[in-house]
Amino acid sequence: MSGRPPTIEDVRAAARRIAPHVHRTPVATSATLDRELGARIFFKCENLQKVGAFKARGAVNAVLSLDDREAARGVITHSSGNHAQALAYAAGLCGAPCTIVMPDSASSIKVEAVRAYGARIVFCKRAERESVCERLRREQDSILIHPFEHPPLIAGQGTAALELLEQVGPLDAVVAPVGGGGLLAGTAVASRSLCPRAAVLGAEPAAADDAARSLATGILEPAVADPQTLADGLLTGLGRINFDILRECGVRVVTVDEEEIVRAGRFVLERMKLVVEPSAATVLAAVRREAGELRGRRVGAILSGGNTDFAWLR
Amino acid sequence: MSGRPPTIEDVRAAARRIAPHVHRTPVATSATLDRELGARIFFKCENLQKVGAFKARGAVNAVLSLDDREAARGVITHSSGNHAQALAYAAGLCGAPCTIVMPDSASSIKVEAVRAYGARIVFCKRAERESVCERLRREQDSILIHPFEHPPLIAGQGTAALELLEQVGPLDAVVAPVGGGGLLAGTAVASRSLCPRAAVLGAEPAAADDAARSLATGILEPAVADPQTLADGLLTGLGRINFDILRECGVRVVTVDEEEIVRAGRFVLERMKLVVEPSAATVLAAVRREAGELRGRRVGAILSGGNTDFAWLR
Repeated sequence: MSGRPPTIEDVRAAARRIAPHVHRTPVATSATLDRELGARIFFKCENLQKVGAFKARGAVNAVLSLDDREAARGVITHSSGNHAQALAYAAGLCGAPCTIVMPDSASSIKVEAVRAYGARIVFCKRAERESVCERLRREQDSILIHPFEHPPLIAGQGTAALELLEQVGPLDAVVAPVGGGGLLAGTAVASRSLCPRAAVLGAEPAAADDAARSLATGILEPAVADPQTLADGLLTGLGRINFDILRECGVRVVTVDEEEIVRAGRFVLERMKLVVEPSAATVLAAVRREAGELRGRRVGAILSGGNTDFAWLR
Repeated sequence: MSGRPPTIEDVRAAARRIAPHVHRTPVATSATLDRELGARIFFKCENLQKVGAFKARGAVNAVLSLDDREAARGVITHSSGNHAQALAYAAGLCGAPCTIVMPDSASSIKVEAVRAYGARIVFCKRAERESVCERLRREQDSILIHPFEHPPLIAGQGTAALELLEQVGPLDAVVAPVGGGGLLAGTAVASRSLCPRAAVLGAEPAAADDAARSLATGILEPAVADPQTLADGLLTGLGRINFDILRECGVRVVTVDEEEIVRAGRFVLERMKLVVEPSAATVLAAVRREAGELRGRRVGAILSGGNTDFAWLR
């Protein structure tokens, strides 16, 4: 697999490949929530994943899919978030050199986490990160592992839904957050094959609703400029490969507002005893938005990550 | 089983009895912590248990061990904490009337939680809760389910360690917090039988160190009066039945100070993405205290509960 979109076989192969290096994360439920919604919600706890997010799955699969010669050239990406940590972690597993281009505004805690995994960090202005990354890639002859537009990475992200279906059995709907779309596309590929009757829903902040609009119009809409949302993992616009997969799989996107995200994050923290980042809280917010549709249903919800300060929950 | 201390067979029977009504909680690990300590620590996540604490195990076993005539008489206890919620939940499972005697200083969130499970609440002054409970028990002819001095309850608490050993295999040490001693005694009974070579350690706040002193002197020492510790689940003095079990099993208690508890709670929240109450954080604090002894070892640590506001972590 390289340029073509991933299939369920790619997702299965990814699951085998990454198994020794990522957690088979637990599934959490809340009787209180199930009563509130008259449904059964199964939360896949990717906040308890290596590096604190599902991103470990895709990055590990992408790096372990390289042959020895490719790995020796090293990998590079631009990210200030979970993909940076995930790629640094993945590269460390096989000793591949790793360069992360980060905006100089990145928080010191994220910088330290990436450094602790042994990656080299290059700082630049936020607006220049793609060009800096591309220049370095050429100079170093290293391999770009894009944060979301990379089929082996998308296949890796799909292993979360694969596992969830193995753990809880058939579902009527599966919900995952959508930013660049890697997780949602991987989820759609896995769900469509393993449980064709399940609706696949994306959860997106209303303030960054390009995926919702793109799927509604059938045309890939540009990302919202400077979106004002707490969900800092979902700022990016939907990628082309993922857009095509989401259309193909008939995915629908539910938008949620900021207050709903905060309320969902508080519920997960206080009632379910789990730390989630705002991007992950969007899935519960979306499930609540769709309560009417989901009544009586079995719903999978992917809590994508837990890397956050707690300021947004106060 | 009634008056005699529980055996491993009682713990096994409890596990079968409670299985439909409690979670088989997941086990969490932290590569960062394992590197810090040069050991492997397996955290049993009872913070993700029903009612947010291991107490669901003991209360459900105690209530489901009653015969129909006993259950119809109803159960009663005094508690402002997790045992109150746990007993209310357990009684609700089989429709047994349930009375909880709570101090009128109990937080409204705890009162509401107990009420939501359908229990009747009787308020009194904190100092009078035992006498009020005893008077009501006689008036109602209901059955006292003591928060920690009750063999079927102790057997139920032991199922956490039983499960942990099933999940991760043999251990070199198992650590649980100690207040009244029900969890630690149940843990000791399970560990001694299933994994005799494992050291069983209690984790206790230095500010409420009666268990440590009692096991050191061999005489059950009175509880510290008005102990000043964040670990509000561990204020009670060690019970007689549990003291005898702990001595019998050769349990040792490690005391930790308040700063260590806070540091441990922050680590679990920020790095492991789990909400724990201060009583649960004591186990990580104790593991760190014993780092020298535990180097190279496989250690089970029971994160006892997650019911907390977050004030202590700021």
